[in-house]
Amino acid sequence: MAENVKRVYAFGKDAQGNNVTEGDKDMKYILGGKGANLAEMAVIGLPVPPGFTITCQTCMEYANAGNTWPEGALDEINKYRQDLEERMGKRIGDADDPLLVSVRSGAPMSMPGMMDTVLNLGLNDESIKGLIKHTENPRFSWDSYRRFIQMFSNVVMGLDGDLFENAITTKKLVKGAKSDTDLTAEDLEELVAEFKQIFSDNVSAEDYPLLVVDGKVQFPQDPDTQLRLAIEAVFGSWNNPRATLYRKQNKIADDLGTAVNVQTMVFGNKGNTSATGVAFTRNAADGTNEFYGDYLVNAQGEDVVAGIRNTSPIAELKEVEGLQEAGRELEGIFGILENHYRDMMDIEFTIEQGKLWMLQTRVGKRTAAAALKIAIDMEKEGLITKEEAIQRVDPEQLDQLLHPQFDKNATYDVVARGLNASPGAAVGEAVFSAADAVEAKAEGRKTVLVRWETTPDDLAGMIAAEGILTSHGGKTSHAAVIARGMGAPCVCGVEALRIDAEKKEAAIAGTDIVIREGDMISIDGTTGILVLGAVDLVMPELTGDLDTILAWADEVRTLGIRANADNPADAQLSRDFGAEGIGLCRTEHMFLGDRKQIIQTFILNEDQEVREEAVAKLFEAQKGDFYGMFKAMDGLPVIVRLLDPPLHEFLESPRALDVEIAKLEATGGDAAVIAEKRALMEKIDSFAEQNPMLGLRGCRLGIVYPILPVMQVRAIATAMAELKKEGLDPKPEIMIPLVSTVNELAKLRAVAEQTIAEVEEAEGVKLEIPIGTMIELPRAAVTADEIGTKADFFSFGTNDLTQTTFGFSRDDVESEFVPQYLAEKILPYNPFATVDPGVAKLVKMGVELGHVGNPDITCGVCGEHGGDPDSVKIFHSIGLDYVSCSPYRVPLARLAAAQAALKDTGKDK
Amino acid sequence: MAENVKRVYAFGKDAQGNNVTEGDKDMKYILGGKGANLAEMAVIGLPVPPGFTITCQTCMEYANAGNTWPEGALDEINKYRQDLEERMGKRIGDADDPLLVSVRSGAPMSMPGMMDTVLNLGLNDESIKGLIKHTENPRFSWDSYRRFIQMFSNVVMGLDGDLFENAITTKKLVKGAKSDTDLTAEDLEELVAEFKQIFSDNVSAEDYPLLVVDGKVQFPQDPDTQLRLAIEAVFGSWNNPRATLYRKQNKIADDLGTAVNVQTMVFGNKGNTSATGVAFTRNAADGTNEFYGDYLVNAQGEDVVAGIRNTSPIAELKEVEGLQEAGRELEGIFGILENHYRDMMDIEFTIEQGKLWMLQTRVGKRTAAAALKIAIDMEKEGLITKEEAIQRVDPEQLDQLLHPQFDKNATYDVVARGLNASPGAAVGEAVFSAADAVEAKAEGRKTVLVRWETTPDDLAGMIAAEGILTSHGGKTSHAAVIARGMGAPCVCGVEALRIDAEKKEAAIAGTDIVIREGDMISIDGTTGILVLGAVDLVMPELTGDLDTILAWADEVRTLGIRANADNPADAQLSRDFGAEGIGLCRTEHMFLGDRKQIIQTFILNEDQEVREEAVAKLFEAQKGDFYGMFKAMDGLPVIVRLLDPPLHEFLESPRALDVEIAKLEATGGDAAVIAEKRALMEKIDSFAEQNPMLGLRGCRLGIVYPILPVMQVRAIATAMAELKKEGLDPKPEIMIPLVSTVNELAKLRAVAEQTIAEVEEAEGVKLEIPIGTMIELPRAAVTADEIGTKADFFSFGTNDLTQTTFGFSRDDVESEFVPQYLAEKILPYNPFATVDPGVAKLVKMGVELGHVGNPDITCGVCGEHGGDPDSVKIFHSIGLDYVSCSPYRVPLARLAAAQAALKDTGKDK
Repeated sequence: MAENVKRVYAFGKDAQGNNVTEGDKDMKYILGGKGANLAEMAVIGLPVPPGFTITCQTCMEYANAGNTWPEGALDEINKYRQDLEERMGKRIGDADDPLLVSVRSGAPMSMPGMMDTVLNLGLNDESIKGLIKHTENPRFSWDSYRRFIQMFSNVVMGLDGDLFENAITTKKLVKGAKSDTDLTAEDLEELVAEFKQIFSDNVSAEDYPLLVVDGKVQFPQDPDTQLRLAIEAVFGSWNNPRATLYRKQNKIADDLGTAVNVQTMVFGNKGNTSATGVAFTRNAADGTNEFYGDYLVNAQGEDVVAGIRNTSPIAELKEVEGLQEAGRELEGIFGILENHYRDMMDIEFTIEQGKLWMLQTRVGKRTAAAALKIAIDMEKEGLITKEEAIQRVDPEQLDQLLHPQFDKNATYDVVARGLNASPGAAVGEAVFSAADAVEAKAEGRKTVLVRWETTPDDLAGMIAAEGILTSHGGKTSHAAVIARGMGAPCVCGVEALRIDAEKKEAAIAGTDIVIREGDMISIDGTTGILVLGAVDLVMPELTGDLDTILAWADEVRTLGIRANADNPADAQLSRDFGAEGIGLCRTEHMFLGDRKQIIQTFILNEDQEVREEAVAKLFEAQKGDFYGMFKAMDGLPVIVRLLDPPLHEFLESPRALDVEIAKLEATGGDAAVIAEKRALMEKIDSFAEQNPMLGLRGCRLGIVYPILPVMQVRAIATAMAELKKEGLDPKPEIMIPLVSTVNELAKLRAVAEQTIAEVEEAEGVKLEIPIGTMIELPRAAVTADEIGTKADFFSFGTNDLTQTTFGFSRDDVESEFVPQYLAEKILPYNPFATVDPGVAKLVKMGVELGHVGNPDITCGVCGEHGGDPDSVKIFHSIGLDYVSCSPYRVPLARLAAAQAALKDTGKDK
Repeated sequence: MAENVKRVYAFGKDAQGNNVTEGDKDMKYILGGKGANLAEMAVIGLPVPPGFTITCQTCMEYANAGNTWPEGALDEINKYRQDLEERMGKRIGDADDPLLVSVRSGAPMSMPGMMDTVLNLGLNDESIKGLIKHTENPRFSWDSYRRFIQMFSNVVMGLDGDLFENAITTKKLVKGAKSDTDLTAEDLEELVAEFKQIFSDNVSAEDYPLLVVDGKVQFPQDPDTQLRLAIEAVFGSWNNPRATLYRKQNKIADDLGTAVNVQTMVFGNKGNTSATGVAFTRNAADGTNEFYGDYLVNAQGEDVVAGIRNTSPIAELKEVEGLQEAGRELEGIFGILENHYRDMMDIEFTIEQGKLWMLQTRVGKRTAAAALKIAIDMEKEGLITKEEAIQRVDPEQLDQLLHPQFDKNATYDVVARGLNASPGAAVGEAVFSAADAVEAKAEGRKTVLVRWETTPDDLAGMIAAEGILTSHGGKTSHAAVIARGMGAPCVCGVEALRIDAEKKEAAIAGTDIVIREGDMISIDGTTGILVLGAVDLVMPELTGDLDTILAWADEVRTLGIRANADNPADAQLSRDFGAEGIGLCRTEHMFLGDRKQIIQTFILNEDQEVREEAVAKLFEAQKGDFYGMFKAMDGLPVIVRLLDPPLHEFLESPRALDVEIAKLEATGGDAAVIAEKRALMEKIDSFAEQNPMLGLRGCRLGIVYPILPVMQVRAIATAMAELKKEGLDPKPEIMIPLVSTVNELAKLRAVAEQTIAEVEEAEGVKLEIPIGTMIELPRAAVTADEIGTKADFFSFGTNDLTQTTFGFSRDDVESEFVPQYLAEKILPYNPFATVDPGVAKLVKMGVELGHVGNPDITCGVCGEHGGDPDSVKIFHSIGLDYVSCSPYRVPLARLAAAQAALKDTGKDK
């Protein structure tokens, strides 16, 4: 590393009151968010306690070199420390009037509470005297010293905090003190001595030879040593486990590092003209343009956050004796900051003996509702443009607004936790089978379906239930995927749940709680919790603000938004949420319930007549399905995917039959029954596959059993013809799944065209039905030029494409090694949640080659990624025509698409 | 279609003896092979009966237009017919001296016997008189007429040939004739009348209104009608089922079409100065430079082929009275043709009353041994260059030379047929379990392992047996793949075989044959047959010719050839066959047999100590394995692939356990035993996967269980160190399988490097071991630029890459829809046999991107495609460094690589 790198930046004023700040708000990748904004505030003339910032890059250099300081760095810090002492006219450790400093972390991205802080640094056995002399407050001074030793020992040296808390408790017992504040200056002085002893007894001389004085470890008296160790501790905290985990969850890069801010201490606990507080420039909960925050008189920052004492609303500050001036100044600063940052700001401040100091500012976090209101209000106020307003709302956050939630005022006990698999809350009687859920629904009872994990068999029950709770499976298990698609709340993988489906009960491991059928339970799929009894729910209010922002979004986005839906109710919901069509209508769900028997007859019977009869029944049913769908989406495209899953998904488990037969045989069961069951088992076994994901499914089914696509296409075309005769404008499109070679598509396209022509002839109606394909196999993507010649549209099935591109079976790997991969950062994120760059490369190739084969081809995405804002941005940049997602994610996708379009045009700043 | 297209080409001389031929031998895609070579022979002055050829393109136009003639085509044919009549001075259908013609198919690629031929066309009730008059041979004439009616009815009109054969039989009975030749001219005249009646009775007036005369269908008397219908029949025969099937099997395109040759009839059956024969210019069986073929005096061509009469050797022809001159002329023509075509030629000729006519020539088919000898001899004779010699041998054919075969002189009955899954023949006692095969081997008995299908469990038995016979599974089933890899004969999918493994016997369905353990059986994996008893075997002689050609091949090829082998014996064999290293040493086979127990202990036991103990045992065993491999390949690279398969492949079937438990429970079994079995089952179930192909395997195993790669790398490095200390030059390389992201490779590379460094330290030997990866997932191919940065080499695993690129599970789809896909031409060929263009595109991308990441990267292929000549050519063109294939295919690959290199340099002509 070249030695001309600048590693330290000053902020605040010098002794003459001149601003000597070296950074600004745009330097957050160098100074961290806190450091950059301290600099910015100083630059615009706000009162900031002087200090300096050590860069994030220094942290990474230090870490990458195995916790070794880069050459010259300590000298540079020392120079800035001396400079700070000059600016303040005080010296750290000075026995007369010592300078005390805080040492705080500050990363480029906000990581609240994840890293370390040391306050009151600079106190030692000498400077304590100066502090007492200067403050004339021995109790405050000794308390500051004992807090420093305690914090330093815990944060910097890693000693157990309980060692110190126990000493305080003992002291209070001995002195008969009820609370900390009853301890006198003398008591605290004694505690300081005891804390130093604890330090000496517990810090290893081997690990810290530099702290050995007179043959034993001593609390460091040298301010240089204190400062260096504190900075090293903050650097080290970048890689502590909770910070690492937080970064992973929030997709923050590991190589950013944290800056360290060394700043003059100011005290909000120097009596009744001192105070400390946190505030937002607007209401962070609902967005109202009002002062929003709390303060405490005579307190330190930690006290506000800890919530031990009752805080007062910030609006009252300027009414308080001795704080009025600071209060009025603060109000003025609110306006200055909003005008300067053009956003709602989050602020920390301290008033020391009447003098206001700004300790932090940053863009304020807000609820989805507040984000919408603030964006719209600021646009009205002329503070920001519409384009900026659109950028101010996090699409992912909108999810909060679109599902029922537990009432904020409700109290409840969480009995178990799982994965927050599908957002929203649900309350109902526990049921342990799909059939019971369906029956309860018919009787008007609400239920929560509790299963080990769900299968396509459970679908009717999943639809009937208010929510789904499973003990097994990850965020992309069947239950999770289907629930998100339906917008139903779902909590998955509740490991403590011990389900006995036969007995219709579930025990909670480690407790004596047993949930029995009919017991009311509540789940919150947004947070992943299970509660006994019925928690009050609040239904989401779709405020006008959401509509406003989405209307603005629609003005700028170029990417179309469709929905994945396979029943008229979901289709209507999609339409209400602004979907411009159905991008994926799966038909396999239409083969379940009562119709499962019919499809089983088809599969298991080789008699042609019986098969045809079954297919005729399916035709009637399917025609009705499509009639309803097309009617709900009148005038908008509805892409119907022909039957996709392997047929054995509709059959019983051969293993269960095998066990049943073994039992019957061992107990002398009826030979005829056994023979019949064995024949059935052998038949089902003949459909078994080693890797069903890669087997007889998708278009392969239609080629092996052409009667099925003919039936489906006939149902689509007939439903369309009937609606046209009624004067409506149905717009179905036919999608052929899992194509790997153009010949598959050519064959089934011919079958479909022939069938449509027959229906046109029979119904006397002209039917124009585009025919396209899913691109969900790598071969389809790389030969899309050939496939494009036979396709009116492509729909990228990025779920399956991710599976085959990675060679990951989603059913398996998400519960196997993917969690470890994410933990070890072998994968930066779950590729089933956000589209992977390798998969995106194939999508891009598919789009480009597809246009070679057919310049007019329409390209969309219908995998779950279509509802993921990060993926939506990638798909926009690839140049897709639309994304299709579950109905509940349509608003998110509209917003994300608009943000992507703005980024494209450079209007995102 | 533009009307200036030329559709008909003349060949042969005009009435003045001038050559009027319009085509030549290079026009086979227009004139078909037969037509082009007839033209060529005419051009170089050989005696060819005059005629004309209708182009292949006309056939396709006719077929594509729904069997409708292109405008002007019939006029053009008519013009050439008249021209031919002028050249011959005779008219078709003439009552005085009629011209008779043959109408024969002739496609660009040889499709012997697949399409139709009509002879003696032009005979009718008038021209028969002229023929009698001109030949003065009424019997010959009436026989010709009845043959024509019979052939026309059968070939052109599709009537059942038996109708006519029955009439002949009846006639013989009535006349008391023993054979056809006993029938007199009068008998034959009567037959003509009867045949015409059969024609009238069986041809539908509705289908052929043009043939209705006087209210009933009549045999067509008009030569124009005869000719047009015959040409249409030949065109139609292009798409008959057997021709279509033949094309599929021989990878011949369906859109080539067939030409039609209309040629003056010459008769080899005009008495004892007439003859007909077929010949090769050299011995097609062993390649000796001698006349080779047969003839029959007074016979038509069909008689020679039919094998009814005993033919005489062609060398004797010039000794026969009345044929001497023609015989000498023929010998001269042999030389002319070889010099002209510079290859061994296959010839058909007819001698009509002493005059020699050449009816066909083409490059002669030959055995592998003959191909080698002829190529080498011709090079020595200066007829062709070395480069041409290399091109003259079909690599696929070499397989014949590398395995034992049934003795050609042996007689035997085939009791059942299956798929020719792995070439070569084997004889041994039938055994029904791997254990029995192993036991027999130990006792010195030879066996054939008979299984429903094989699993990795059977491996030890497969190695011990002489050959493998299964009733289930296709050419790429486990048995087939492993057998080919080992070079063991294998017959798969013998559907008639009803195996009862428990009883150790197999019945042959539809017979009363039962094969019991110990019965001698013989199988021929080259042809796919099963024989009872021991058939004599001949061991292949590796003639010097093969070595010669392969040495020549090695001079020109640029592609390296390595072998896939995982034991020292196979490694040695590979080396003997010319392999330049081991491209894939699988290690999973090393975990079977006795060691399976150890790996099971590792998998099922969670006690760390027990696991480490198991791994320590595996280390010792593996070290020995690698020691042997590296020693056998001393001085050559050996790429060892770390453990790849899912762990549950080493475990029992949980379903079988489930059934066992059910039985035990139903019969009041010991509770402790049941509990133990249930615990085992649950443990095994926890390893079960929906799609194991896409689950926890490959490098994922190494990341989840790092102790395994550490053990394997340590074994590799230690074996290498020991050999180095012995003064040898071991060259192991470490291959990490199933990488999808560079991070996986980076992690395991670091683990491997660390382990190697530890061994270097412990052994005091410097070890340089390249580390690379398999590219066998689409994501690896498209992100190969990233992966390349961490890889010293890439080995493309095209088996798995084909699976994920297509979304085909090989275990499943080859017995499911792939056969139908091949039949319907949705797939032009099996992509697991010859690499698919889409997969090849990913390989190409992987190679190109890999070089971006690491310009010095070595790229090879180790999928089964490495041994497929067509694929080898594709891999050469992609620019790979080497292919690796099973030991027995190394010679093929060497030759194919040379041919690819010659094609590259344009030296393949």
